[in-house]
Amino acid sequence: MHINAPYELVLFGGLGDLALRKLMPALYLLYRDGRLPSGRIFAATRQTLEREDFLGRIEKALKSHLPSEYLELATWEGFSQCLHCLTIDLNSAQGYLDLATTLGSDDPNRVYYLATGSDLYTPICQGLHDSGLIKSNSKIVLEKPIGHDYESASAINNIVSEYFDECQIYRIDHYLGKETVQNLMVLRFANSLFESQWNQHYIDHIQITISESIGVEKRAEFYEQVGAMRDMFQNHLLQLLCITAMEPPARLDPDSVRDEKVKVLRALKPIVGNHISDNVVRGQYDAGVAEGKPVPRYRDEPGVHPKSMTETFVAVKVEIDNWRWAGVPFYLRTGKRLAERACEIVVHFKEIPHSIFPLQHKSTMANKLVFRLQPDEGVRLMLCEKRVGPGMNVRPMNLSLNPANHKQTRVPEAYERLLFDVLSGNATLFLRDDELLEAWRWVDPILSYWEEIEQRPEPYTSGSWGPAAATLLLAKEGRLWDENS
Amino acid sequence: MHINAPYELVLFGGLGDLALRKLMPALYLLYRDGRLPSGRIFAATRQTLEREDFLGRIEKALKSHLPSEYLELATWEGFSQCLHCLTIDLNSAQGYLDLATTLGSDDPNRVYYLATGSDLYTPICQGLHDSGLIKSNSKIVLEKPIGHDYESASAINNIVSEYFDECQIYRIDHYLGKETVQNLMVLRFANSLFESQWNQHYIDHIQITISESIGVEKRAEFYEQVGAMRDMFQNHLLQLLCITAMEPPARLDPDSVRDEKVKVLRALKPIVGNHISDNVVRGQYDAGVAEGKPVPRYRDEPGVHPKSMTETFVAVKVEIDNWRWAGVPFYLRTGKRLAERACEIVVHFKEIPHSIFPLQHKSTMANKLVFRLQPDEGVRLMLCEKRVGPGMNVRPMNLSLNPANHKQTRVPEAYERLLFDVLSGNATLFLRDDELLEAWRWVDPILSYWEEIEQRPEPYTSGSWGPAAATLLLAKEGRLWDENS
Repeated sequence: MHINAPYELVLFGGLGDLALRKLMPALYLLYRDGRLPSGRIFAATRQTLEREDFLGRIEKALKSHLPSEYLELATWEGFSQCLHCLTIDLNSAQGYLDLATTLGSDDPNRVYYLATGSDLYTPICQGLHDSGLIKSNSKIVLEKPIGHDYESASAINNIVSEYFDECQIYRIDHYLGKETVQNLMVLRFANSLFESQWNQHYIDHIQITISESIGVEKRAEFYEQVGAMRDMFQNHLLQLLCITAMEPPARLDPDSVRDEKVKVLRALKPIVGNHISDNVVRGQYDAGVAEGKPVPRYRDEPGVHPKSMTETFVAVKVEIDNWRWAGVPFYLRTGKRLAERACEIVVHFKEIPHSIFPLQHKSTMANKLVFRLQPDEGVRLMLCEKRVGPGMNVRPMNLSLNPANHKQTRVPEAYERLLFDVLSGNATLFLRDDELLEAWRWVDPILSYWEEIEQRPEPYTSGSWGPAAATLLLAKEGRLWDENS
Repeated sequence: MHINAPYELVLFGGLGDLALRKLMPALYLLYRDGRLPSGRIFAATRQTLEREDFLGRIEKALKSHLPSEYLELATWEGFSQCLHCLTIDLNSAQGYLDLATTLGSDDPNRVYYLATGSDLYTPICQGLHDSGLIKSNSKIVLEKPIGHDYESASAINNIVSEYFDECQIYRIDHYLGKETVQNLMVLRFANSLFESQWNQHYIDHIQITISESIGVEKRAEFYEQVGAMRDMFQNHLLQLLCITAMEPPARLDPDSVRDEKVKVLRALKPIVGNHISDNVVRGQYDAGVAEGKPVPRYRDEPGVHPKSMTETFVAVKVEIDNWRWAGVPFYLRTGKRLAERACEIVVHFKEIPHSIFPLQHKSTMANKLVFRLQPDEGVRLMLCEKRVGPGMNVRPMNLSLNPANHKQTRVPEAYERLLFDVLSGNATLFLRDDELLEAWRWVDPILSYWEEIEQRPEPYTSGSWGPAAATLLLAKEGRLWDENS
């Protein structure tokens, strides 16, 4: 795979938080690694900036978000020649006509990256279309959230698909760009040892956690309307579930992989009616301690309604009604102000049926495979070995499955991979329309139920692992969340 | 488990090679670790020695065979107080009467360790019996080789069992005392990940190699009568096969484990008649290079007959006719003057049925589990992982399954474990009479066939991996020996 030159990348929201924090650093690293051929990057923004000021903003962003050893002067000078600032009012037709003039009339490998709120998706698509900017070679990248329920997501899909073919649309979920998610696929599908046990005969249950230690920070206005279910669960957690649970695709091409992922979403057991209270826990953080400092409760955060019903935590027992996974619960959780920042997929293999060794606590000794996506990436395998010396005593051991990687090679950032994939036309790691809609279809009844009952989410202390009900969700089935792992 | 005090250990062949090289160092280390309670160690020997000379011999042996950091003066002084030299003519009745006087009439935890040729087993047993030295609490340890075929082994068994109950008899195979062999049992029976794949559904084949780089050295007189089949294959290789292939025992007690091992030996597909040439390779080393120096051919070694038919190499394709292993070949080999000194059990899992990754050579990428018994002990797992960075490229990785062990803890020598087990009355790692006889029963037809055909074993160059026929034994089934692993 390589990027067809010349490419053109138009970043709407080009000086926004995402662009400065993630996209520009990722593009710089691709350039630095010699993987970005000649081309142009346009940061489209409302502001009018002198070129010098514009480059100053980008350079400052790189310095803030990249380790200093990556910032070589010569590299920056080369990279900055690709960068162009483009002032545009996204709600004005003239803006797009000006854009068309700037870009010219040829049909290069062009990507429109919408790093904006989803309310702008319609005017941008329309503006691009009306000014003749959508060519057969154009692609569009949509950032989450795409909609806030099935209906609104469907509406966005419909509008975007009026102007772009599905194969031109790249719906990003940056968790899929993480190195360890790719490695999960390799470990599953390149090792008979794992894939032959990847089913209900050998796996007891699977846990997927995305925990944040931060609170709502400055995003209250946005977060109040969204909550943990829409912000993290419907997209990232369900995507990680799909990658973990999917059948082996026949090939690695986009549709083979996405066919398998959407099959998982379609096989999710619906959680509706009175099953919701049994299988779904939602919480909202109370005051507590984070990183050694006292922190306020969610309802006291600036911009949050004092009687807010928004959940900052959600935990769900998900079941997959198919041959491979029947009877294997997937416990998914995410939340803010939890004990630590982490993202892990933990595969719990079944206990051994019978132990011949002394003093072995079977459940704590069951094999585990842990995929850690953040803050550091890596894979660990928990096995049991003999304690060296007399007797036949067993002890658990944690094996790092990539001890060499971290020393020898820089692990690329998710956005590096995903930007490269868009520019080179590989949609494997992007969501197809049906995936997006199936995820919303499954989540919708839970969201509606919460609206109906008008009940406050269960409070939990900031710095804890969430509400007591989340512990109970597993405990009532004799299991525990993996914590401090 | 602990050693019942006071113990008495009578080492026949007390100043022989095995005693000085292995047994005394092992006893010293047990003493040093505080695992040997008060008791007496008698080195029974033909020679008459002053106590000072005797202790000098032992101390010298410890210095030669132990790392210097283990040799503390205070420890040696304490240990040497347990040591006693005992002059005895093993063929004279008076010798045993004198021994009885020395040992006294009480019935302590007493072990007779026969580190002698098996021709002395009968007179020693008889002598001990006639002088009333065999009590209910006595145990006897027999070193290999026990017999040179089924009939002679059976005869020795019959004689020893006239005087000792089977539960008093400890037939040693020091390979079973190796830490990694115990760890093999733990890795199998404490990890569902491995044991659930330990069968013909998931395993392609298993290789067991014991290779020596040395030649016949000063053992020509003995080795000419024995050869690789009797010296290494019938005992060590078949024992490692049993541990690798046995069903999970219900408990770790001696008979539960040995019942399972003997079932493996009884399930071995007989190799008889014209199947022998297809499944068994024997070789004899030619001149070549070992450790950078030219070395002579076996037939030119001092003490070897110039037309010797003795094999210094043997490789066998072994099949186990039971539900678990049907269709899974076990390739076993051993030899002198091979490319390196090593002992490994390599479990080759089946290839993945279908690869979705680019440029993957399926057969070289199949998962492997490697148990290394010497020169260094350890376990490695060969898995495939994603190569960090762009694309979805797969690369093999070798994981050490005990990285921590080797740093933190001294790995005990096989004889430490086995001597401790004898003194504490645990026979799990010792051969039962039926195991010994079943092994000979299976090997006998091959030995007879070789005697009949009077054909020279296939020559192989010293420093190679054995004769071409050994390579062919696997190659004709599309496999390769693990070399340089």
